[in-house]
Amino acid sequence: MTEERYTSLEQLGAQTGAPESPEAARLERVSNPAQGNDFLIRFTCPEFTSICPVTGQPDFAHLVIDYVPGEWIVESKSLKLFLTSFRNHGAFHEACTMMIGQRLVDEIAPKWLRIGGYWYPRGGIPIDVFGQWGECPKGVWVPDQGVQPYRGRG
Amino acid sequence: MTEERYTSLEQLGAQTGAPESPEAARLERVSNPAQGNDFLIRFTCPEFTSICPVTGQPDFAHLVIDYVPGEWIVESKSLKLFLTSFRNHGAFHEACTMMIGQRLVDEIAPKWLRIGGYWYPRGGIPIDVFGQWGECPKGVWVPDQGVQPYRGRG
Amino acid sequence: MTEERYTSLEQLGAQTGAPESPEAARLERVSNPAQGNDFLIRFTCPEFTSICPVTGQPDFAHLVIDYVPGEWIVESKSLKLFLTSFRNHGAFHEACTMMIGQRLVDEIAPKWLRIGGYWYPRGGIPIDVFGQWGECPKGVWVPDQGVQPYRGRG
Amino acid sequence: MTEERYTSLEQLGAQTGAPESPEAARLERVSNPAQGNDFLIRFTCPEFTSICPVTGQPDFAHLVIDYVPGEWIVESKSLKLFLTSFRNHGAFHEACTMMIGQRLVDEIAPKWLRIGGYWYPRGGIPIDVFGQWGECPKGVWVPDQGVQPYRGRG
Amino acid sequence: MTEERYTSLEQLGAQTGAPESPEAARLERVSNPAQGNDFLIRFTCPEFTSICPVTGQPDFAHLVIDYVPGEWIVESKSLKLFLTSFRNHGAFHEACTMMIGQRLVDEIAPKWLRIGGYWYPRGGIPIDVFGQWGECPKGVWVPDQGVQPYRGRG
Amino acid sequence: MTEERYTSLEQLGAQTGAPESPEAARLERVSNPAQGNDFLIRFTCPEFTSICPVTGQPDFAHLVIDYVPGEWIVESKSLKLFLTSFRNHGAFHEACTMMIGQRLVDEIAPKWLRIGGYWYPRGGIPIDVFGQWGECPKGVWVPDQGVQPYRGRG
Amino acid sequence: MTEERYTSLEQLGAQTGAPESPEAARLERVSNPAQGNDFLIRFTCPEFTSICPVTGQPDFAHLVIDYVPGEWIVESKSLKLFLTSFRNHGAFHEACTMMIGQRLVDEIAPKWLRIGGYWYPRGGIPIDVFGQWGECPKGVWVPDQGVQPYRGRG
Amino acid sequence: MTEERYTSLEQLGAQTGAPESPEAARLERVSNPAQGNDFLIRFTCPEFTSICPVTGQPDFAHLVIDYVPGEWIVESKSLKLFLTSFRNHGAFHEACTMMIGQRLVDEIAPKWLRIGGYWYPRGGIPIDVFGQWGECPKGVWVPDQGVQPYRGRG
Amino acid sequence: MTEERYTSLEQLGAQTGAPESPEAARLERVSNPAQGNDFLIRFTCPEFTSICPVTGQPDFAHLVIDYVPGEWIVESKSLKLFLTSFRNHGAFHEACTMMIGQRLVDEIAPKWLRIGGYWYPRGGIPIDVFGQWGECPKGVWVPDQGVQPYRGRG
Amino acid sequence: MTEERYTSLEQLGAQTGAPESPEAARLERVSNPAQGNDFLIRFTCPEFTSICPVTGQPDFAHLVIDYVPGEWIVESKSLKLFLTSFRNHGAFHEACTMMIGQRLVDEIAPKWLRIGGYWYPRGGIPIDVFGQWGECPKGVWVPDQGVQPYRGRG
Ligand SMILES: [Ca+2]
Ligand SMILES: [Ca+2]
Ligand SMILES: [Ca+2]
Ligand SMILES: [Ca+2]
Ligand SMILES: [Ca+2]
Ligand SMILES: [Ca+2]
Ligand SMILES: [Ca+2]
Ligand SMILES: [Ca+2]
Ligand SMILES: [Ca+2]
Ligand SMILES: [Ca+2]
Ligand SMILES: [Ca+2]
Ligand SMILES: [Ca+2]
Ligand SMILES: [Ca+2]
Ligand SMILES: [Ca+2]
Ligand SMILES: [Ca+2]
Ligand SMILES: [Ca+2]
Repeated sequence: MTEERYTSLEQLGAQTGAPESPEAARLERVSNPAQGNDFLIRFTCPEFTSICPVTGQPDFAHLVIDYVPGEWIVESKSLKLFLTSFRNHGAFHEACTMMIGQRLVDEIAPKWLRIGGYWYPRGGIPIDVFGQWGECPKGVWVPDQGVQPYRGRG
Repeated sequence: MTEERYTSLEQLGAQTGAPESPEAARLERVSNPAQGNDFLIRFTCPEFTSICPVTGQPDFAHLVIDYVPGEWIVESKSLKLFLTSFRNHGAFHEACTMMIGQRLVDEIAPKWLRIGGYWYPRGGIPIDVFGQWGECPKGVWVPDQGVQPYRGRG
Repeated sequence: MTEERYTSLEQLGAQTGAPESPEAARLERVSNPAQGNDFLIRFTCPEFTSICPVTGQPDFAHLVIDYVPGEWIVESKSLKLFLTSFRNHGAFHEACTMMIGQRLVDEIAPKWLRIGGYWYPRGGIPIDVFGQWGECPKGVWVPDQGVQPYRGRG
Repeated sequence: MTEERYTSLEQLGAQTGAPESPEAARLERVSNPAQGNDFLIRFTCPEFTSICPVTGQPDFAHLVIDYVPGEWIVESKSLKLFLTSFRNHGAFHEACTMMIGQRLVDEIAPKWLRIGGYWYPRGGIPIDVFGQWGECPKGVWVPDQGVQPYRGRG
Repeated sequence: MTEERYTSLEQLGAQTGAPESPEAARLERVSNPAQGNDFLIRFTCPEFTSICPVTGQPDFAHLVIDYVPGEWIVESKSLKLFLTSFRNHGAFHEACTMMIGQRLVDEIAPKWLRIGGYWYPRGGIPIDVFGQWGECPKGVWVPDQGVQPYRGRG
Repeated sequence: MTEERYTSLEQLGAQTGAPESPEAARLERVSNPAQGNDFLIRFTCPEFTSICPVTGQPDFAHLVIDYVPGEWIVESKSLKLFLTSFRNHGAFHEACTMMIGQRLVDEIAPKWLRIGGYWYPRGGIPIDVFGQWGECPKGVWVPDQGVQPYRGRG
Repeated sequence: MTEERYTSLEQLGAQTGAPESPEAARLERVSNPAQGNDFLIRFTCPEFTSICPVTGQPDFAHLVIDYVPGEWIVESKSLKLFLTSFRNHGAFHEACTMMIGQRLVDEIAPKWLRIGGYWYPRGGIPIDVFGQWGECPKGVWVPDQGVQPYRGRG
Repeated sequence: MTEERYTSLEQLGAQTGAPESPEAARLERVSNPAQGNDFLIRFTCPEFTSICPVTGQPDFAHLVIDYVPGEWIVESKSLKLFLTSFRNHGAFHEACTMMIGQRLVDEIAPKWLRIGGYWYPRGGIPIDVFGQWGECPKGVWVPDQGVQPYRGRG
Repeated sequence: MTEERYTSLEQLGAQTGAPESPEAARLERVSNPAQGNDFLIRFTCPEFTSICPVTGQPDFAHLVIDYVPGEWIVESKSLKLFLTSFRNHGAFHEACTMMIGQRLVDEIAPKWLRIGGYWYPRGGIPIDVFGQWGECPKGVWVPDQGVQPYRGRG
Repeated sequence: MTEERYTSLEQLGAQTGAPESPEAARLERVSNPAQGNDFLIRFTCPEFTSICPVTGQPDFAHLVIDYVPGEWIVESKSLKLFLTSFRNHGAFHEACTMMIGQRLVDEIAPKWLRIGGYWYPRGGIPIDVFGQWGECPKGVWVPDQGVQPYRGRG
């Protein structure tokens, strides 16, 4: 039942190990199935962890990525492996979030992309990072990400 | 009590089987009962399932369709049967969502239509697809779809 | 304590029966108490029921009506009785919702009015209808209706 | 520790009785502590009650007031006493809500003010009233009031 | 890294098709990793669909299964395939839910098992089915399933 | 695909009018498909309306019915028609709720039954009625109905 | 349509003023319509206000009353008027809540009664009061009141 | 309007400074106004802060205290001042929570008391402490505290 | 693993005491890691307390700070210590909130900054303060802060 | 300000690396500060990740641990490091959850302990694991963990 457009994919449907670093991860792409009509794709990634570059302790985040594809859409298993590759990567919240967005921009050349990084609290204060690239084409519907704000206790 | 406008409908109020494919499904339409004043119709469809074209495993989605009718409105039982017809259809999330929107556009020629496809997670990452067709007429009220974002656990 | 402006009302404060049809219901109005400064009035009506014109079975809806009054505001007991009058009225969701909005427009001549009809599911799919009349005056604050979307189960 | 600007206040920090009517209530004001930079102040008042002018029965409301101060900000204890003064005041929902907004406008001359009155249901139908005065200065951040809509039961 | 206990599994980690019926599905099991201390395992299955035996239309349910293992625990990929096998199976809500519970009881011989079947509404009325098998051993902690009740609209 | 046990049903799958009164409604039943193992069936009925016997105005309720079947289970379309038959029936909240439970007990002879009636507010005060019949057999799992409490505004 | 049992009621369906004190309020009762089978009645009263006996400032509470009737049930309009009568009554939270429960016990002699008083915060700290009278008969279903706890901000 | 029982109170209604330590704080009490009938009093205290004895950094908690009074009830302003007195007090979460409960037990001799301390996260992990003293008398209604669990992000 | 840009920081990773006043607190900054592409950083601070300048009693707030960095980003441990320094600082809600925003603007020269101060209720009425500085650059994504509104009880 | 009981701790307040495996992690303990009165301690741990022993892909969980201390309480920084040590550990959900509980039981000898492991979905089905050790002493208050159930989409 597999369409031709997917035959070049090397990770989807194959046994794959976890890439050792973001650099080692390969983002794969397939041609956009609805090119005549701009639309939005959202990935919600509640399973993300990286390393604090100063203390070496793990950090955790909930990430939401929105983009309007151009010629390509990202293959989602390769996206998952790319995110997994940050497991031993040391970077600050701001740098890490923006690096993920930038890499996707570089690899799939979307018309527009944004990423919301909702990090777990440190010192009682969570940091959220909201970045975007390009200008959203007119006529695209961009719903709010709607992630519930942090509230402490009570 | 049935108004004349509904007498041409063949599926509503009749015993109907499930169509075997999207192509086999017949979308029916009746004339717009409020043509002088543009308004919005929303269908919320939490019961949708199709097949992954690569693995053959079922996929599930929650769909919300908004449109501003032109001359026609879609008859809702025929819409239900159309959605049911994807049960054995193999397509990716992005393609499937956009195909549903396109078919409605082709059959009922709305002034504007959009579809939100909120897919159940695969590999820990759900995909949402947001497509729209045409330009929403001025003076139409378009509320947010307000579907709760995916959050993992905790 | 009753102000003069209310002395012409015939249903408020009186023993009233339920009107037998929308046509038989009398919407009453009093003069707008804040005419120099446009403002918004919202009625939330979770108790609404009508009849399916094809099957004769009851339908239910949650209605929210927003309007900016001109010279008049609608008296709320007469609104309640008007809504009650649909109990034996047969009409489709779209037609019924738009008819309620139109009648209010005809009777109280608001500067702007909109109605959200949030209908209970049939065939697993609820329909929402969003209509509006006129153009909202500048300088009016129009909050989102915020009705929670339908979600099925789970 | 009391700053000079507060020394003219007569109700704050003093033993005060409840004013007998809105007319008898004294709204007090102090000079705006951040005059060079327009900002928004929000009061949320879930404890409000007045009297129905027709039936003499009590009405209840949840009020939210937003304003951008000019030269003055309202002292909050005097606001509380002003709201308390409606306890024996007879007025309809629309009139009562707009009267509160107007009085604040008259007394503290804000650059912009709005009030949301969220009234408890009567006859199964709650009324919300949304009024505003003036034009909100550019560069002011005005968050949604976010009050949960009324939903009946279930 | 695979432990010996899993080497007999035939579906986990293998390419598997969807079984054509519940009878054709193979539930697999591995030995209980914590046999000395009774504990509870919960599976939440929001992706379930079967067929109405009268109308042939699809039904949908959200299922939650709790059990206290004896000698065996069920392998979760085989559980998923078993649930998938109901896709073309015709049975009423009550029968379908109880059949799933019974089959698990037959195959893995738990000390105790219960299943909550939360079905999507038909005719405006959802049905929930709550079954259990055996007696829960003392000293086992059994949290509430906490599935949000159905609420219609508003 | 219809099993033999359903062949005696006269309303399911047939064109049916709305019964004119509770007395005129026919509750139908089929044999319990899981008789060897007590279990619970829950119906959630958010679409219920009756008439106030004093004022003649409509009342609305959200009903939840739980029962443990004996020899019979109630057929759900006949239940829906039975509930519909209260549309022109005059009875107080307490009487109406208990009458529904009693009729089910009389017709299907369950081992145990309970009904929660969650009525829409009158005079600002909603009434809930909680009745039950018989003693719940040991070994049956009875989850909380979990209906959200009434909260007024704010 | 009024049943005989209601003919002795003097406040329901009549024009009534607000009683001036709890002592002046008349609680009325009618015979229990389901005496052979103990059941629970719940009133939710989000509109309650009294006076602080020390400061003279108004207090507000959300009250929930549960009872199992004996020979009588309380007529709900008279309950509403009784609660209204506390508007000018000075009492502490604990005393006021327990007094309401006691009065109901004295007037309608229920088999069991409890009252939850959920008071609005003073000094940043709300007080809840939970009282009950008598012993709940066996075989009565008593759902949790489920009032959301106070949480401050955030 | 002040009742005699309150005349011995020294802090309520008086100008009071913040006590410098828990030892310096005076808890005051008045006689139980409903001694013949055991009942529960709940204080919710979302404004609590103390000091980490190791790092000197502030800690924050949301506290909920439930008790069944004996001869005395605690005066709530003195409770507030007592809690305020921990502002410069160094103690661990467990010790601090239990110390508050113990002090109340010592001062007002309740029949039963419990305290839930819901502390803000440190190192990504919040600690809750649940202590109780004495045995709850039979016939007292003790609702769940219902504080929402901590959830991280997403 | 520490990058060079952080080597000048004096508080992060060091043993630090709590600064005695806002003036004594040192906000530290590091160079913006993504200067070519404007983005938003959000800090959520549910642990904030200061002193009422009139009564000397503690106040509490939940703060949310959004900013678009220019050349610098604020180091988060120094932000935490800055917020901690208000523990003994007397200021009104409006003044305190605006002072925090102004200090950040002075120290890190963001392109745009806003602060939402959500204060705990006093006199039953919470105050929220919403301030902003500068003009948000085009092409920056600024999500709603989404803090749940205050609701009293019920 | 550090009390004597903490002087033997080696990780708290010290620079610590992440332990390489559960075996390498050292759980530390201090004496129970409230030994005469059994109480409950709850840790909520939303940041947990381990490795699937079959596929090598990361798994994520939200853990909640409740225990009644005996002579010792666990030091929370050492608990955090212990949980961190599973980052490269391969184990199934059931085994991993039970191993954490067992290790705590071995190290701090609580009177009673339970752990709820709420794992992120795999194959669309999340697994929860609920284990406990020992018997909870009488007179201990054990609140529900209240973790929201998994719900898929919509
Ligand atoms: Ca939105
Ligand atoms: Ca808080
Ligand atoms: Ca919206
Ligand atoms: Ca999470
Ligand atoms: Ca809004
Ligand atoms: Ca669903
Ligand atoms: Ca908003
Ligand atoms: Ca539970
Ligand atoms: Ca409803
Ligand atoms: Ca439950
Ligand atoms: Ca309950
Ligand atoms: Ca509960
Ligand atoms: Ca409870
Ligand atoms: Ca938003
Ligand atoms: Ca309220
Ligand atoms: Ca609980």
